[in-house]
Amino acid sequence: MNSQQLVNQIERKRSFLCVGLDTDPRLIPSKFKQEADPVFAFNQAVIDATADYAVAYKPNIAFYEALGPKGWESLQKTMEYIPSDIFTIADAKRGDIGNTAYMYAQTFFDPASSGLNFDSITVAPYMGHDSVEPFLRFEDKWVILLALTSNPGSHDFQMTKSEDYIPMYERVMRLAQTWASPEELMFVIGATRVDFLQKVREIAPDNFFLVPGVGAQGGSLEDVSRYAMNSRVGLLVNSSRGIIYAGDNPAVDSKREAQKLQEEMSTYLDAYYIK
Amino acid sequence: MNSQQLVNQIERKRSFLCVGLDTDPRLIPSKFKQEADPVFAFNQAVIDATADYAVAYKPNIAFYEALGPKGWESLQKTMEYIPSDIFTIADAKRGDIGNTAYMYAQTFFDPASSGLNFDSITVAPYMGHDSVEPFLRFEDKWVILLALTSNPGSHDFQMTKSEDYIPMYERVMRLAQTWASPEELMFVIGATRVDFLQKVREIAPDNFFLVPGVGAQGGSLEDVSRYAMNSRVGLLVNSSRGIIYAGDNPAVDSKREAQKLQEEMSTYLDAYYIK
Repeated sequence: MNSQQLVNQIERKRSFLCVGLDTDPRLIPSKFKQEADPVFAFNQAVIDATADYAVAYKPNIAFYEALGPKGWESLQKTMEYIPSDIFTIADAKRGDIGNTAYMYAQTFFDPASSGLNFDSITVAPYMGHDSVEPFLRFEDKWVILLALTSNPGSHDFQMTKSEDYIPMYERVMRLAQTWASPEELMFVIGATRVDFLQKVREIAPDNFFLVPGVGAQGGSLEDVSRYAMNSRVGLLVNSSRGIIYAGDNPAVDSKREAQKLQEEMSTYLDAYYIK
Repeated sequence: MNSQQLVNQIERKRSFLCVGLDTDPRLIPSKFKQEADPVFAFNQAVIDATADYAVAYKPNIAFYEALGPKGWESLQKTMEYIPSDIFTIADAKRGDIGNTAYMYAQTFFDPASSGLNFDSITVAPYMGHDSVEPFLRFEDKWVILLALTSNPGSHDFQMTKSEDYIPMYERVMRLAQTWASPEELMFVIGATRVDFLQKVREIAPDNFFLVPGVGAQGGSLEDVSRYAMNSRVGLLVNSSRGIIYAGDNPAVDSKREAQKLQEEMSTYLDAYYIK
């Protein structure tokens, strides 16, 4: 999917909601546990309930890997079930070099390889340019590079200032923009503090940000919208548990929570989205 | 596997060789392509040929993932086939936070989860302490943390000096040693330059290093042995393609290449291993 198709979808649905499919078979409502493939059955119900309000789905790959080969089958079926006009993110945080990175890219981007056909993948920057470049060889596919996260460990290395006083996350964002255009590169921005939101938008004015820290993790959707929206919206805001585990009946409960976020997003689009 | 068992194995085999199972179905000899599970059949032949000379096997997870659910089955069968006294490394370079990192740990460490029972996993440090800690909760399992790699992109962030003039890779190595003991933490050290080998051994005197850059990637095994061996050997030196793709007949060709490296390692143990 290219950026224009993504922006069109955001404008049509009046939403920049990404639903995180962190599906844990131990946490899903009991009625799904009797299905042949409980993870897929639950995902189907969540997708049916939220597809009108979400512009992206983000399976958290760890949750599928942890189930072995069966988990990968559930993931394949989930990917086939997601409507083709909705953006998909493999939240995999891969990062390796050369031909290994290319293998990971094939895994998630080339359906002839593993059966998966994601639009994008989250990637870790530590190994530098040649760990990112192989993902960029695929047309209309996106790298979503880890930049500034909101977990306690983000202070260990991401915030470290270099001898020219540039924090590591800023170096990552600036250097990565010399590798790829905003048509193929997004950043993971977990920041919820206003000053950081303003800073990262200044560093990367044109890139989409994937923001994982709203909802259960406590960020303010209004702050994110006010300080990090750009002239192409430039935001995908994720909610996982708050939507998928909203209650025993996804058709009602997940739908209600997704709609609530979509309606809030719609008001922020009115307020802050200036084309 | 604990460190004493690993050191015992190294002393017994007079080898610190790790064989990288980067098995690509397109590259294996044609006779294996007719098998029901070509990847597993090839791995079996390589393991049979090299188990006397290797103290560790390192499947490169990308190569299995790229094949979809079938690849994970080949990986499971390979893991069951590896003799239980040989150390195993999931070269997965995972890095995510909290419950997601714990899911990755379960994937590779807990056979009740995905069917895999690795001794160790390679982990990326960018997200900091809480992306590493979940892997440390498993007894006699190891984190092998990316520190200094030898790819061109290693200069992008790993070499960046902080305002106190400490390069990022050194910060990673020093901070990580406050999180975990040398009984559960190794580092990936791709360095082959003598000054870097001396430096990283000074930074982490007691940790094992996994060194991927010898053989096809051109590092000097003697330099690594001379400058980075410690009083518990402290080295696992990997060779992948140079062994597994040594010829059409792994029983002869892979065996010959593994034995050659083992014999070279034996002379370096004589020369540089001082308990």
